[in-house]
Amino acid sequence: MKFPRIYSLKEIAELIGTTFVGSANFPISGCNEIHVVEPGDIVFVDHPKYYDKALDSKASVVLINKTVKCPQGKALLISKDPFADFNKLTKHFNPFTISSTSISKSSSIDNSSIIQPNVFIGNNVVIGKNCVIHPNVTIYDNCHIGNNVTIHAGSILGADAFYYKKRKEGYDKLLSGGSVIIEDNVDIGALCTIDRGVSGNTTIKKGTKIDNQVQIGHDTIIGERCLIASQTGIAGCVIVEDEVTMWGQVGTNSGITIGKGAVILGQTGVTKSVKGGKTYFGTPIDESRKKLKEMAQIKQLIKKEKK
Amino acid sequence: MKFPRIYSLKEIAELIGTTFVGSANFPISGCNEIHVVEPGDIVFVDHPKYYDKALDSKASVVLINKTVKCPQGKALLISKDPFADFNKLTKHFNPFTISSTSISKSSSIDNSSIIQPNVFIGNNVVIGKNCVIHPNVTIYDNCHIGNNVTIHAGSILGADAFYYKKRKEGYDKLLSGGSVIIEDNVDIGALCTIDRGVSGNTTIKKGTKIDNQVQIGHDTIIGERCLIASQTGIAGCVIVEDEVTMWGQVGTNSGITIGKGAVILGQTGVTKSVKGGKTYFGTPIDESRKKLKEMAQIKQLIKKEKK
Amino acid sequence: MKFPRIYSLKEIAELIGTTFVGSANFPISGCNEIHVVEPGDIVFVDHPKYYDKALDSKASVVLINKTVKCPQGKALLISKDPFADFNKLTKHFNPFTISSTSISKSSSIDNSSIIQPNVFIGNNVVIGKNCVIHPNVTIYDNCHIGNNVTIHAGSILGADAFYYKKRKEGYDKLLSGGSVIIEDNVDIGALCTIDRGVSGNTTIKKGTKIDNQVQIGHDTIIGERCLIASQTGIAGCVIVEDEVTMWGQVGTNSGITIGKGAVILGQTGVTKSVKGGKTYFGTPIDESRKKLKEMAQIKQLIKKEKK
Repeated sequence: MKFPRIYSLKEIAELIGTTFVGSANFPISGCNEIHVVEPGDIVFVDHPKYYDKALDSKASVVLINKTVKCPQGKALLISKDPFADFNKLTKHFNPFTISSTSISKSSSIDNSSIIQPNVFIGNNVVIGKNCVIHPNVTIYDNCHIGNNVTIHAGSILGADAFYYKKRKEGYDKLLSGGSVIIEDNVDIGALCTIDRGVSGNTTIKKGTKIDNQVQIGHDTIIGERCLIASQTGIAGCVIVEDEVTMWGQVGTNSGITIGKGAVILGQTGVTKSVKGGKTYFGTPIDESRKKLKEMAQIKQLIKKEKK
Repeated sequence: MKFPRIYSLKEIAELIGTTFVGSANFPISGCNEIHVVEPGDIVFVDHPKYYDKALDSKASVVLINKTVKCPQGKALLISKDPFADFNKLTKHFNPFTISSTSISKSSSIDNSSIIQPNVFIGNNVVIGKNCVIHPNVTIYDNCHIGNNVTIHAGSILGADAFYYKKRKEGYDKLLSGGSVIIEDNVDIGALCTIDRGVSGNTTIKKGTKIDNQVQIGHDTIIGERCLIASQTGIAGCVIVEDEVTMWGQVGTNSGITIGKGAVILGQTGVTKSVKGGKTYFGTPIDESRKKLKEMAQIKQLIKKEKK
Repeated sequence: MKFPRIYSLKEIAELIGTTFVGSANFPISGCNEIHVVEPGDIVFVDHPKYYDKALDSKASVVLINKTVKCPQGKALLISKDPFADFNKLTKHFNPFTISSTSISKSSSIDNSSIIQPNVFIGNNVVIGKNCVIHPNVTIYDNCHIGNNVTIHAGSILGADAFYYKKRKEGYDKLLSGGSVIIEDNVDIGALCTIDRGVSGNTTIKKGTKIDNQVQIGHDTIIGERCLIASQTGIAGCVIVEDEVTMWGQVGTNSGITIGKGAVILGQTGVTKSVKGGKTYFGTPIDESRKKLKEMAQIKQLIKKEKK
């Protein structure tokens, strides 16, 4: 999430009510989660296990719940509750806005695109050329849709990330300030859900085709020319490289990478990152050749045993 | 399903066209299915296998297709077709009502709650304080939603139970007269379905967070502070106790109980009731530690065999 | 897809810009895919592997990318790109039409049927007697719905087939010109997707009951009195015979047949055609009795090994 202008460290510290370590004028351009953070960004960390990762990341400012040594060229925001204070940033820079009309006047939709009846288009949505948005689709605020994109009925772009912190009194939600980017020539089936990023974007790259009832989690990046069959669920913060094929009802863990050109057979549970160019099957995942051989060997063992 | 007033046994017998055993003035306050039935209620039974269970239940009146001995302090409604006659009760006391507007004037929505465009809210729906109902959500008649509840786009609360009786000429539907109760601080993702109860209620207790594309069947009760990830399907008449975590694409059988604090890993098929406080995996379900060990042992057996 | 009148071979060749082999007046009544093609129809083929299948099919005209010997009594359309030229036929005879209203004036809805608010009904849709169409349902152009049909909220009938051809520059879509046929006494749950056929129809036969979040692919035929539980995904070109029961989260491959009266247990992956009258379980699919026995035997082998 980029801020609308450069803020100073002091300004941000005052905004969210923290102290700071570093020059009061230290420039800050945005905030992001650790896996997509860029120079100029704030990143937050509230668990000692991840302190080093955050301090060593590309982030220029670390929002942290301990007074640690400030890495050179960086700044710190010292907070009792970095999670809650990060939410303050999202609330300030990208607050939820009520829509009074089905299609927001602040959206920008090219004249060549077709919006069928009963569609909801939120604030600041951009839709390119020659798109068809079928009935009952919901596009939340700030989503960007390229050219030649088809979205079938009932699909939902930009709902909140499923991201909670367990506290004594229950789950606390990390607010979503990111968005959804759909590149050119993408087809999205009916009743899909593509969540927006927490502070970055969920991106579907050009030429990818998605079947019905597919779920794509927050901050996930789907490469170019992928084929994703029905009822597949891709968790948050996943990287699917180009030309990956996923058959029906596949599920994935969060935070993994699926290599270029991989083929994931139906109902597979992608429990870890897998290399490209191969075909996979099963839960836990394995190369399909190996998995099927193993299954045959088990049958033989049983047969032998019975004799 | 509670009736609007106390009815007499004779009144109900006339209403649904059955004979009765017991005092004509025997008071009846409602009807329910066997697993949630309460004193004052009618329960129905049409299979000899379940006669004793129904007669011994908390129900005060048993709608039954055989003239059996009436248990003390109870009454009987003798019917050729208890299933069809139970439907008559639902049809009479909670008939389907057409909605002429997207938001029924008989609904009660607190001023502090936000209803985004294209939402449908049925008759007698109650929505508490500080809720956000996102676009294209459908809330059927009689659903009750607490405070601080977020429902993301396209979710459906209160569709009919999937409950049929096989007859020679095809499937006969048990009408749904129950409702959906969403307690305080619940978040529901996009494109979820939460069916209403057949005669009781489907309940999501306070602080529970539900991801996208989750299905929750009729009369199921989800405890407090549960976390249910995307594309999980929970069948009808299930009890999920407090603080249960279910990862993505989990499925369950109907009528089971998942104990407090259990963690169900992704794609698991919960084929039977499981105790709380443990982590489970696989179909059929087992403790994940055991299951993963078993999988490793199988691989070793095959390896050994090949030598 | 039937054409509105009989066309001559020459007319079609000019329409799609191909040469032809056969009499210029050779009559053509429609076009279809190979598995549902009928006499009078055009079928297309672009891979040598399938040439014979297409030439030997019931099709009267073969749209093909090689000048082969024309079978007796048939005709050929010779094309550099049969896939693209088949799309021209669909575009010409069944082009996508924008809807300016939520309920098209060209639709035919019986007075006895109830259409709840926020429903979209496309052009030339037919809805029979005593149907209930719940809120936020989308029915695309040309769908036919019989009598006594209930469609719960948010379901989508008639979205495009997920059918692409891989080209060097990315995936090319086969346009869908078929439709969806829902016969009498069918119930469809909330948030289901039933795609239309590519050139034939996707059909749900009478008395079948479908739970929530079920996906049914293009050109698939579901028999009479089937029961399909929640989150099941049936691929394209599948034949499900009468009285089949499929429990939750079942998935199927495309192009297979499930025999009459088969029962498919939850989460099963129907990886191949299966005979009727039996119960199946697991991925890859097997008879459940065998599968469960095998699982028990594996456990015993491990136990024995440990001694």
